[in-house]
Amino acid sequence: MIKPRTPPGVMELLPRDQVAFQRMLDTIRQTFERFGFLPVETPVMELSEVLLTKSGGETERQVYFVQSTGALEKSGEGLPELALRFDLTVPLARYVAEHEHELAFPFRRYQMQRVYRGERAQRGRFREFYQCDIDVVGKDVLSTRFDAEIPAVIAAVFERLAIGEFTIQLNHRKLLRGYFEGLGIEGEAQFAVLRELDKLDKRGEDAVRATLAGDGFGLAGEAIDRLMAFARVRSHGHDDALAKLDALGSGTALFEEGRAELGAILRQLRALGVDEARYAINLSIARGLDYYTGVVYETTLDAYPQIGSICSGGRYDNLASHYSKSKLPGVGISIGLTRLFYQLREAGLVGTVDSSVDVLVALLDDAGLEAALVMSQQLRAAGLNVETQLEPRKLARQMQYADKAGIRFVAMRGEDEAARGVVAVKDLRRGQQFEVAGHELAAALLQARELREGALA
Amino acid sequence: MIKPRTPPGVMELLPRDQVAFQRMLDTIRQTFERFGFLPVETPVMELSEVLLTKSGGETERQVYFVQSTGALEKSGEGLPELALRFDLTVPLARYVAEHEHELAFPFRRYQMQRVYRGERAQRGRFREFYQCDIDVVGKDVLSTRFDAEIPAVIAAVFERLAIGEFTIQLNHRKLLRGYFEGLGIEGEAQFAVLRELDKLDKRGEDAVRATLAGDGFGLAGEAIDRLMAFARVRSHGHDDALAKLDALGSGTALFEEGRAELGAILRQLRALGVDEARYAINLSIARGLDYYTGVVYETTLDAYPQIGSICSGGRYDNLASHYSKSKLPGVGISIGLTRLFYQLREAGLVGTVDSSVDVLVALLDDAGLEAALVMSQQLRAAGLNVETQLEPRKLARQMQYADKAGIRFVAMRGEDEAARGVVAVKDLRRGQQFEVAGHELAAALLQARELREGALA
Repeated sequence: MIKPRTPPGVMELLPRDQVAFQRMLDTIRQTFERFGFLPVETPVMELSEVLLTKSGGETERQVYFVQSTGALEKSGEGLPELALRFDLTVPLARYVAEHEHELAFPFRRYQMQRVYRGERAQRGRFREFYQCDIDVVGKDVLSTRFDAEIPAVIAAVFERLAIGEFTIQLNHRKLLRGYFEGLGIEGEAQFAVLRELDKLDKRGEDAVRATLAGDGFGLAGEAIDRLMAFARVRSHGHDDALAKLDALGSGTALFEEGRAELGAILRQLRALGVDEARYAINLSIARGLDYYTGVVYETTLDAYPQIGSICSGGRYDNLASHYSKSKLPGVGISIGLTRLFYQLREAGLVGTVDSSVDVLVALLDDAGLEAALVMSQQLRAAGLNVETQLEPRKLARQMQYADKAGIRFVAMRGEDEAARGVVAVKDLRRGQQFEVAGHELAAALLQARELREGALA
Repeated sequence: MIKPRTPPGVMELLPRDQVAFQRMLDTIRQTFERFGFLPVETPVMELSEVLLTKSGGETERQVYFVQSTGALEKSGEGLPELALRFDLTVPLARYVAEHEHELAFPFRRYQMQRVYRGERAQRGRFREFYQCDIDVVGKDVLSTRFDAEIPAVIAAVFERLAIGEFTIQLNHRKLLRGYFEGLGIEGEAQFAVLRELDKLDKRGEDAVRATLAGDGFGLAGEAIDRLMAFARVRSHGHDDALAKLDALGSGTALFEEGRAELGAILRQLRALGVDEARYAINLSIARGLDYYTGVVYETTLDAYPQIGSICSGGRYDNLASHYSKSKLPGVGISIGLTRLFYQLREAGLVGTVDSSVDVLVALLDDAGLEAALVMSQQLRAAGLNVETQLEPRKLARQMQYADKAGIRFVAMRGEDEAARGVVAVKDLRRGQQFEVAGHELAAALLQARELREGALA
């Protein structure tokens, strides 16, 4: 006998949690589609040489390689041919480069699949997890107008997920790098300083100041003061965001470019009607140092800052330099849904949801089987999700089962109800029982379900 | 520069095909949920010792093993710890055994995920493919009434997928084995004879007759005649199916048990209102020789028999004997959607579908940007999927783009329309243009979309 268990580092859910997870996935997908993003799915395995174009990064050390039994037998031949994707960005780059002449640009795709990383197993770290990504990829150029559409999508997703107040934090790499230029920090040193500023939350201001004043950087006290003041800039509300941008003083051409772009994004967000409480500038966020080149986004839950960013991304100059000579600038974000779900559950923010089953059609005795089957099929034809009790059990046990399974309604038609042309319905959520004419049953239950879906939307 | 390409043996779709594929997945999922099946997703990787409980089968030779970079470095230590699932049945067995005390039985689950097999790469053979499975798993016992619900689900799925007339072929292992008993074919010889009958289509009757008369079997001519007559039984319509069952003559206890069960299934299918043209008995189908113990199902497209079975399954005695001492009988089916989609496309049965984007909001000049953004958000709030043209282009090019992308409607509001409070809408499918009052736009487009969805359902 083999002990049935999953490998460490994966999230596998029981059905009721899976229903909750699936509803989140559906909401995200529906919202992505609202904004015109197109679905893409890529294979879980890519050719190793395609996947591993750069090496040395932490993620690259966590790649899972795939070998068939045959390949395993003649091992010692270097890297296996196949490897599991560790994010959805590298597959997107490969996909766009491969199908460059078949796709319409700007290409707006969403992709919601699992990715794999050979993480050391520990609580809350996953070796397999969902990413929900959107990207808009241009050919040669991509208007910065797309940079403003992305936060509108983020806002719509998290409003509909209804997991609490959130803020989309905005920063801009040109603003950051232009500001550094103004302080005489150039080239590679900019990345080094960025890396230090990124540690402000973790290490605290004093430690970061000490590092910047130390041997590696040797920055003057005044430059450090100005860096710290810059990194502390946060806005509250739309007008304040524009005012804080204005108040930064003048700077290099790059700095002014960043300020103009970020200002335009803010104004476009207002035109899109995004609630101004949902976005703010935060000049400390750095994000993907060697990848992003324009706006960067992080999203935090106001009441749970310790969860960190729940949706991040930004603008990049060139998606697929390893696979294509074309310049493919883009902008995108990613939601790590497995990790988010895990943390929401830890924080008690994922409640039990109703089952995907709307109604259990009860069976009181064998003589009622045919009537129960007919009623079930009628309800299904009307669009309801129905489980039929196929073997008679005590009614109390059928109720108990429905209650435990999160099925809200139990429909019963005994001899008495059949004679009167009605169905008895128990609403387990409200603890009420009522009768409804047989031909009105589907409509009554559908209305109740729409109320639930309305509450979710 | 690395050539961007996928590994052989995977199906990756361009967005419009992906939309068509996604609609099929959604339809299948929706139908599974209609019948009260609950969602389950399992990790793509299982512990190798959990996955490989039996060895020697063809599928077991096609397992993909997974190794992290670290594990790869210290190779030569036997099988890797992890392997990719090759079907959804073994993970179901592990899942049910692992969560036996948390699940409610009978447990009705659906699972729609990809599985992996190290197939020799050739056209139409996939190394990664979707399976869409449902199973009902009982504890200790499971009423054969569930066996009749499964074909009702199959019928609902393929009616809604609308890919042509189909027939669910039914057979019963007890009927088969009971009939063999009556001919004096017992024990292992039953499996051997079944294997031969299963080749009737491929090898033809003469070749199979020769084998059954030959050294290994040594069956008498009369026994072979009766086997052939039995395997040729097909029904047309409900009454004929019952009559053909009756006409089989009497047999062993096992035979009578099979006949009674298959008859009950047929009668329950009628009570469920399943169109009698959709099911038939076919006593030649064998299916999963060492696994199924009761009813077996195969589904074929009437106009495309060469595609073979598009949905198969049956009743089994014990799901998880490797992982649990409990007896877990069940019944289930699987749709291999990747292969089906491939074959439908080859046969020209997957047409181009509309984009998931309902409407493109055109942009005539930069001055119109804010109005276009506002209109887009209003349409989204009403439930429409909207792409906004963010940079002005010639209107003809915007139309051309929408047409190529399968976006049915283009909404335009120039100065003239704005002054009159209307929006001009081009319906690219009908080649018509019309005007609608601004506040009626969403309702008009929603109605058109519902017409499309109605046509799909």
